[in-house]
Amino acid sequence: MGSLEGMRVLDMTQYEAGTSCTQLLAWLGADVVKVEPPTGDPGRGVGRALTEDNNERQYFMNYNSNKRSIVLNLKSEEGRQALLDMVPHYDVFVENYGPGAIEKLGLEYDLLSSINPKLIYARIKGFGLTGPYADYNCYDWVAQAAAGTFSVTGEPDRPPMHPGPTIGDSGTGMQTALAITAAYVEQMRTGKGQQIELSMQEAVTMFMRTLDLQKWGTEPAARTGIHHGSGATATYPCKPEGPQEDPNDWVFIMCVTSQMFDSLCAAMDRPEMALDERYSDPMGRVEHRDALYEEIATWTRARTKREVMATLGPAGVPCSYVFSSLDLFTDPHLVEREFIQTVQHPINGEVKLMRNPIRMNGVVPLQHSPLLDASTDEVLAADLGLDEQRLEELRTSGAIGSPYAPKIDKATSAAGGD
Amino acid sequence: MGSLEGMRVLDMTQYEAGTSCTQLLAWLGADVVKVEPPTGDPGRGVGRALTEDNNERQYFMNYNSNKRSIVLNLKSEEGRQALLDMVPHYDVFVENYGPGAIEKLGLEYDLLSSINPKLIYARIKGFGLTGPYADYNCYDWVAQAAAGTFSVTGEPDRPPMHPGPTIGDSGTGMQTALAITAAYVEQMRTGKGQQIELSMQEAVTMFMRTLDLQKWGTEPAARTGIHHGSGATATYPCKPEGPQEDPNDWVFIMCVTSQMFDSLCAAMDRPEMALDERYSDPMGRVEHRDALYEEIATWTRARTKREVMATLGPAGVPCSYVFSSLDLFTDPHLVEREFIQTVQHPINGEVKLMRNPIRMNGVVPLQHSPLLDASTDEVLAADLGLDEQRLEELRTSGAIGSPYAPKIDKATSAAGGD
Repeated sequence: MGSLEGMRVLDMTQYEAGTSCTQLLAWLGADVVKVEPPTGDPGRGVGRALTEDNNERQYFMNYNSNKRSIVLNLKSEEGRQALLDMVPHYDVFVENYGPGAIEKLGLEYDLLSSINPKLIYARIKGFGLTGPYADYNCYDWVAQAAAGTFSVTGEPDRPPMHPGPTIGDSGTGMQTALAITAAYVEQMRTGKGQQIELSMQEAVTMFMRTLDLQKWGTEPAARTGIHHGSGATATYPCKPEGPQEDPNDWVFIMCVTSQMFDSLCAAMDRPEMALDERYSDPMGRVEHRDALYEEIATWTRARTKREVMATLGPAGVPCSYVFSSLDLFTDPHLVEREFIQTVQHPINGEVKLMRNPIRMNGVVPLQHSPLLDASTDEVLAADLGLDEQRLEELRTSGAIGSPYAPKIDKATSAAGGD
Repeated sequence: MGSLEGMRVLDMTQYEAGTSCTQLLAWLGADVVKVEPPTGDPGRGVGRALTEDNNERQYFMNYNSNKRSIVLNLKSEEGRQALLDMVPHYDVFVENYGPGAIEKLGLEYDLLSSINPKLIYARIKGFGLTGPYADYNCYDWVAQAAAGTFSVTGEPDRPPMHPGPTIGDSGTGMQTALAITAAYVEQMRTGKGQQIELSMQEAVTMFMRTLDLQKWGTEPAARTGIHHGSGATATYPCKPEGPQEDPNDWVFIMCVTSQMFDSLCAAMDRPEMALDERYSDPMGRVEHRDALYEEIATWTRARTKREVMATLGPAGVPCSYVFSSLDLFTDPHLVEREFIQTVQHPINGEVKLMRNPIRMNGVVPLQHSPLLDASTDEVLAADLGLDEQRLEELRTSGAIGSPYAPKIDKATSAAGGD
């Protein structure tokens, strides 16, 4: 039983920023009802091309497991009314549509909170709801550039780089999930809801509070390349593991304090390096950084990245080899921790997903993402008391349901129904 | 009044991963009592050198505002007993000490939950509590390397880069804050606590679920350099704004769909480019990527980064100039949104902090970070009913308090006391 058992979420999110938020709520036990247009969350179309058997794509599966899908055509009067009729049955409404979309659908906070004063109404917008850029379109990379992440990533004398990880999307999703859960605590206590606003640009700045702090508010923080701050802390090249060089044959070693440096010298079996006057204090290690880098790199180049970590990790030196995304599936540590999990999907069969990093009793078992339209009848019947005939009428009029819904047995297609 | 008003947190965190978690809880209204050793959170020593007047550093201020500081010497019997006596008065215990430290102090979950069964006991560890790497030391960059972020950041034919943002620390902190708040919901309902575990390595993988998904689980995702996926989506060079070239004179432009491409051509006043057969569909834009890049770069090089954004943003093209960390303090959009806030600090005077990205009624006003030891007497008197004489005895025996506490009027040094 999940910690958020009982929380009901009307989930009008798409792509990643919003879906990663409701994903977390679902993993913590909330009942997340994903409201999709007849064409589906556009995130269903991201990635690998649709095959003839309509199989679901990894991108969508990664952000929508443990949810239920219903399809409402909110541009039809009856479809929109169905959504409004559902509002009293839910604790949370959350959306990350583009600027102005919710207003065009007439689903503003004032209306929905008048129907259900305890509703928590959360909005994710690229640049927020106010300010000169409020109407600009925004996606992960845009939010990252606007929060400064490019400016501190890459090599000092080369172009700014985008960090690969999607911290603009999932970083905002996490913070929104926290905001919603905190507002739910308040709702439990006071019976009142509230509006929540997250700007993706601002959400990303939460990761920008440690950079080059001597310059805080006065000068731009700099890019550092493979060196990371002072002394010997850096990314070092390693011996290829296979017959060919691999772009990730590197290891990161952290060496900030003299204690770390001594541990490193001992682990490398280079006691004389620890006694070398040039490296005897942090300032010296900064001054002679290039020579020190070369000494350590000579040692790492003679070993594979996994050998280096196996030597330095147990010796107390903070260190990790540069994991590729594939190493996340195969590394013995993550395998032992059952980090990759297999779920059974009604169309795709066995699917590999990363598990929820939160480990506690209040986390529910991982289930597959829902097929489009899989729970429309079930949810509308339960929430609104609609009978089969009425559901059929609404389907025929195009107010609910989707012609793109996969044609498989409905009984097995809802989340967790297998 | 904050959403988490009433939640009480025994905060044994240090540096960033743990402190960013309790920072979020404090910003949402929890009473966060930061338990420090007599030498203080080592995070107090990160950054700018201590000046004679003992002023507080930006790093510490960025992660510890709105908290109270008490000093307990947990290596003394009386100091440890004071902590155990406090446990019944709190909802949450959270720590991110190095591997084995909490065990050495004898503060394990079994003991604390036997004192207070409703206690939520959260632990952040670099590689988690189990598995072959469980005892390895870990900091932000180590966790990032181990989660694969380096492998997907940088240029394809050059070394892996660390993303500048501290997603290993603050990314884990956010997820822990969510886990704690969800467990608090469960505690409100059932009266029961639970243990929470977060591995920083695993927490960072939450940002790795969108990369190169055709290769998911079968091949490593690649680095892409200044190009970002398909077609014209890339970082482009701009005309310098000042007399000298600046490393951040770049703009990011997103152009994935044909609609975005048409908007881009129109905004650039290059209608003929939209009609160019080579660029007429996404496949063509991929095939002729280099030629297309040069056409767009010729246009961006004739404009400053801010001019490009001012042209493309209103035209609906997803775009942002490459903000430096300093631009976060000065950009008109963020200024209008009052993103940078000024708080009054009892020693440092006016201090600039980034605001909580979560905007809702349940967020409390920003207050300065606490001076070391500022609330020890206040908290122990209120929680344990200790009188002045007993507090003085404990101070004299070294069980509580710190000789490093700044010598200023205590009445003004607690969080929010100015």
